[in-house]
Amino acid sequence: MPIPKPFVILQPVSEETALIMKVRSILVQETSQYQEIAIAEFTEYGRGLVLDGLVQSTEADEHIYHECLVHPPMVAHPDPRKVLIVGGGEGATLREVLKHGPVKRAVMVDIDEKVVDLARRHLGTMHMGAMSDPRASVLIMDGLKYIAETEEKFDVVILDLTDPYGPEISKMLYGEEFYRRVSSIMEEGGIMVTQAGSSFYYPETYDMVLSNVRSVFPIVVEYNVWVPSFGYAVNFITGSSNVDPANIAAEDVESRLRARGVTTKFYNGRTHIALMNMPIFRRLSH
Amino acid sequence: MPIPKPFVILQPVSEETALIMKVRSILVQETSQYQEIAIAEFTEYGRGLVLDGLVQSTEADEHIYHECLVHPPMVAHPDPRKVLIVGGGEGATLREVLKHGPVKRAVMVDIDEKVVDLARRHLGTMHMGAMSDPRASVLIMDGLKYIAETEEKFDVVILDLTDPYGPEISKMLYGEEFYRRVSSIMEEGGIMVTQAGSSFYYPETYDMVLSNVRSVFPIVVEYNVWVPSFGYAVNFITGSSNVDPANIAAEDVESRLRARGVTTKFYNGRTHIALMNMPIFRRLSH
Amino acid sequence: MPIPKPFVILQPVSEETALIMKVRSILVQETSQYQEIAIAEFTEYGRGLVLDGLVQSTEADEHIYHECLVHPPMVAHPDPRKVLIVGGGEGATLREVLKHGPVKRAVMVDIDEKVVDLARRHLGTMHMGAMSDPRASVLIMDGLKYIAETEEKFDVVILDLTDPYGPEISKMLYGEEFYRRVSSIMEEGGIMVTQAGSSFYYPETYDMVLSNVRSVFPIVVEYNVWVPSFGYAVNFITGSSNVDPANIAAEDVESRLRARGVTTKFYNGRTHIALMNMPIFRRLSH
Amino acid sequence: MPIPKPFVILQPVSEETALIMKVRSILVQETSQYQEIAIAEFTEYGRGLVLDGLVQSTEADEHIYHECLVHPPMVAHPDPRKVLIVGGGEGATLREVLKHGPVKRAVMVDIDEKVVDLARRHLGTMHMGAMSDPRASVLIMDGLKYIAETEEKFDVVILDLTDPYGPEISKMLYGEEFYRRVSSIMEEGGIMVTQAGSSFYYPETYDMVLSNVRSVFPIVVEYNVWVPSFGYAVNFITGSSNVDPANIAAEDVESRLRARGVTTKFYNGRTHIALMNMPIFRRLSH
Repeated sequence: MPIPKPFVILQPVSEETALIMKVRSILVQETSQYQEIAIAEFTEYGRGLVLDGLVQSTEADEHIYHECLVHPPMVAHPDPRKVLIVGGGEGATLREVLKHGPVKRAVMVDIDEKVVDLARRHLGTMHMGAMSDPRASVLIMDGLKYIAETEEKFDVVILDLTDPYGPEISKMLYGEEFYRRVSSIMEEGGIMVTQAGSSFYYPETYDMVLSNVRSVFPIVVEYNVWVPSFGYAVNFITGSSNVDPANIAAEDVESRLRARGVTTKFYNGRTHIALMNMPIFRRLSH
Repeated sequence: MPIPKPFVILQPVSEETALIMKVRSILVQETSQYQEIAIAEFTEYGRGLVLDGLVQSTEADEHIYHECLVHPPMVAHPDPRKVLIVGGGEGATLREVLKHGPVKRAVMVDIDEKVVDLARRHLGTMHMGAMSDPRASVLIMDGLKYIAETEEKFDVVILDLTDPYGPEISKMLYGEEFYRRVSSIMEEGGIMVTQAGSSFYYPETYDMVLSNVRSVFPIVVEYNVWVPSFGYAVNFITGSSNVDPANIAAEDVESRLRARGVTTKFYNGRTHIALMNMPIFRRLSH
Repeated sequence: MPIPKPFVILQPVSEETALIMKVRSILVQETSQYQEIAIAEFTEYGRGLVLDGLVQSTEADEHIYHECLVHPPMVAHPDPRKVLIVGGGEGATLREVLKHGPVKRAVMVDIDEKVVDLARRHLGTMHMGAMSDPRASVLIMDGLKYIAETEEKFDVVILDLTDPYGPEISKMLYGEEFYRRVSSIMEEGGIMVTQAGSSFYYPETYDMVLSNVRSVFPIVVEYNVWVPSFGYAVNFITGSSNVDPANIAAEDVESRLRARGVTTKFYNGRTHIALMNMPIFRRLSH
Repeated sequence: MPIPKPFVILQPVSEETALIMKVRSILVQETSQYQEIAIAEFTEYGRGLVLDGLVQSTEADEHIYHECLVHPPMVAHPDPRKVLIVGGGEGATLREVLKHGPVKRAVMVDIDEKVVDLARRHLGTMHMGAMSDPRASVLIMDGLKYIAETEEKFDVVILDLTDPYGPEISKMLYGEEFYRRVSSIMEEGGIMVTQAGSSFYYPETYDMVLSNVRSVFPIVVEYNVWVPSFGYAVNFITGSSNVDPANIAAEDVESRLRARGVTTKFYNGRTHIALMNMPIFRRLSH
């Protein structure tokens, strides 16, 4: 069990922990207006998307992240027809959303055209053509602006954004005011979900995000799942006025998945129960 | 989110992934007959035990590992009076076992006297004096030999051993023949549990261990939990003739914990349900 | 030839290159008013002083750095009686200076009392008691202030400072105005030397320092030597009105060393010739 | 001065030291019968050849290595007409050899066709077409076999081989018996040179190689030069019956270079003097 060499990625997990992963080749390294974009072949994880030095998705484990981001709120909603995804440039969140039969329209808004273009060309195993699905609209624009200006309302809003502990812009995407705006474009009976970084490594940030969601939505549910190539268990938080993902039985999850024609690799009725019951990871102080 | 510096530990997670964690000081670095032993102060994880370059336990997260190793089988057993721990030199597994009121006798067998001595002196926040509990017997000897020679029988056997993908000696500790011997020193109605490394990074090894347990025990249960300082979700496998940890309700877990006076930081009735339902992590091939 | 593990130091060499060195133990890690100070035992380099994450000196190779910093200007000066050292907190520069018989007085000015105290206690193999030599005065104060206020003049001034590419304060120590002040406290016939970082990795900075020295001193000599634990060949620049280290024969170096009772491990007449003739390393652009 | 990220090469320098260098892209990664071959774009060093995880040459500094390997023995020889190069697959050693006007024939023997082919295609800035020079013969075969079987004799033999501390095969290339064979294919008045790894990090190996050369050749000269992307000063050893590179004046070096039409970037008369006088780096024990 040696340290991998010679070519590796050095990925920060926190201020004081990092993950080294062996890389076979680097397909693309480009700088967009917003970030540094790379697509690499990892020896152990297959092809992966890396933004600003942080792995977003790899073929070996993106299903864990994307299925757990999308299906708990989608399944909890009884009839999700219109879905908004903010972020999610590689198209895998869209792919999972479109698996649900009731979906009539899925809008994906990503700020970075370069990410979306590179994903289209190089990450076919991730988007599986979802961006060309007739029900999908892929918009290149600032998610904040879209939410402020749209006159549509959505049953499910999925916030697949960069981590909350990054620069100012992303803090704007995890603030109370932001969730208030998200709430205003949700249909009655709608639900939103956001990824929320790592409660273990960034407990203050996590608690801040949680508190902001709680100040807007009466029903808030937390869950998390380990994503190997992230180096941590990623947290998710849902917010809604009346949809409660923690209050569905495994069998009901299964029957909704079946009825909607959803097939998955990691998520199912039992996974749902596990997600809803697993404690939030917190570092013990010492 | 920079790479931590200047002093760090480089910990292999698999052949092609490693974890870097910042170190404040190195209290001890010694070589015993069996392994290289270090005790370090990590900036993010507090004090930790490192054997052959692999983190075994840190103050920030060892409760996750030890509570999930010990309590599912202990709670599933209706009346665990005699418990055997093989390995577990830092004493934290023993600490968790002794929380259960019914326990009359807990034998801990570790091969490496140096680990046990250093743990006694430097890892008090981990063992919490457990090794001096009147119900505990701490033996320095080869676990294989102990199991072959003892005439005692145990209600619960906890195998807290080095990873299955290491050298020959540890493979001997995950083989069918070994589990047959373990079975022979279990009371009727007993249960055993072993940690089983990472199913994500070492799927073949994991499947081999699982198959070996299955060939000896009729009731086999798999579960896993992410341990941050390991860099992966560690797997556990229980084996028994009639005790099934997957078949207890959250409330029953809670009432047994209460009745036995067990208090914990991570594990509880809902955690139990989560552990029993979370899928086994497997890398997707690409 | 594996990557060293588990405990290592990650030392930046440039923006895009770093050195990993295995560490056996960390004796001290403290933060002073000026910097983070560590003293570590390296497996391959023995004990070493680390400031702000950068190795300053290790037992295995500090003689290369300190002998090459001190002896070329000291030998080039025909009769160095009064010597000023700015920086050099671990005392090894002072140790080399005091080897020269003619030296009657050596003033060492270091801004960081904590470095000097820790060096006194833990780096005896480096200072060898030099700080207690009756000819030595060790002052804890800002070198800039000392140079501005002192009424003494010196035959040799040795600038053993942090690298020129660090924060503002150190840029003040490599500027034209600074060299003008240094010049003003030099005896006629005096010489000064400064370490000048890496011309290979920081060519613009190096050229700036060189240009600043040239704008003050008519005779300027450049030389460099590889220091393994730095990860690069460190550059030195001397400045003087009439002393030219490049213009001494190997035999004259040897006879001066002999006459002054100087014994060394790396530097001698031939080394002097090598230093004066080795090209300045420059990265080729591509 | 942060640790470079995200993509880097982790290059062992010794058992306990390694170099991290930032990588922009990996052009090729292939496994031949003999070794793992990679060609990468380094952000700081340009394009580079990496064999078995060890950097062999980069555009930023290969001139330092190749000029210092080739020119000291070539210049020391009064009339080098026939030159043999063993190894040197990227063609840069051949490029330097062919700069010398007197050379009528240069045979380059490399065991690994894949390295030579990849170099031809991707490392044009290194070989500069040298392999197509009418005076050059490039043979793909085992150097040992070539030396055993050839009936030619050479004025200069240049051993540009993998490091002496690698596997058995390379030890065969640094043994006394090998040097005896090399000697047998040298013209009277010939000279050979070998790179000899790092005397600082591998002193025993270096001394062994030195002793083997000495047992065959009456005139042996040692020299070394820092190569940044190697992470150490590489040593060279020449052996001859009557040619002594240490015994030429700088002006004579210059006049021979001029007469032969050799132009260089690092090596010249003064460099020659520096190389011949710089001490051999040795780690001090502690």
